[in-house]
Amino acid sequence: MRARDLLTDVPTVTLGTPVREAARLLAEQDLAGLIVLDTDGTPHSILPGTQVLRLAVPLYCQDDPALARVVDEAHADRFLEEIGDRTVQDALPPELRELPVTDPGATLLEIAALMDRVTSA
Amino acid sequence: MRARDLLTDVPTVTLGTPVREAARLLAEQDLAGLIVLDTDGTPHSILPGTQVLRLAVPLYCQDDPALARVVDEAHADRFLEEIGDRTVQDALPPELRELPVTDPGATLLEIAALMDRVTSA
Repeated sequence: MRARDLLTDVPTVTLGTPVREAARLLAEQDLAGLIVLDTDGTPHSILPGTQVLRLAVPLYCQDDPALARVVDEAHADRFLEEIGDRTVQDALPPELRELPVTDPGATLLEIAALMDRVTSA
Repeated sequence: MRARDLLTDVPTVTLGTPVREAARLLAEQDLAGLIVLDTDGTPHSILPGTQVLRLAVPLYCQDDPALARVVDEAHADRFLEEIGDRTVQDALPPELRELPVTDPGATLLEIAALMDRVTSA
């Protein structure tokens, strides 16, 4: 079995995609992250779903999660609105997550070894 | 909206579950990881799917992923058989991943702040 036998379609975003759109894709397709393409369509990095969430969590809650408890429920449901017009570029972490790339002929073991290297980096 | 409105059933394993069974659950249900329970049923930690893969990737490929390329295809398809009779306990990373716990009354913002804290830890 080779990489080409395991291909699936996944949605991508570009650096200029609004974070709102990225959040919608993550939620609707139940994804942990999205593949980010450069403006010329080449693979760029990974946008972790948690990074989109972080952009929406007020700073005072990031510093002290216990403070989230004192926000009233009506507001707590609306926190994702705060991402405004920001783009995927704004949401990427300072240290970009490597987007591992393989070729269609890679074996299962090659793919596993690549995943192992990237996750343990 | 509260945590109780967002509940879903997820499969769990215990420290004594064979890794083979964990691998089957991860693959069949397309999961990134599994919740691990202690022998008394209390939440223990998270077993990342990549950790199960790592257990199956030969050490020489972990040190140098390029070596995976020289393994012939027939063997490369069988590498997962090498996990043998090992258990989830054997597969857990040396530094356990925190299993964040919240209560049914938590708001969306509380849940997001908790996820933010855990993923940035």
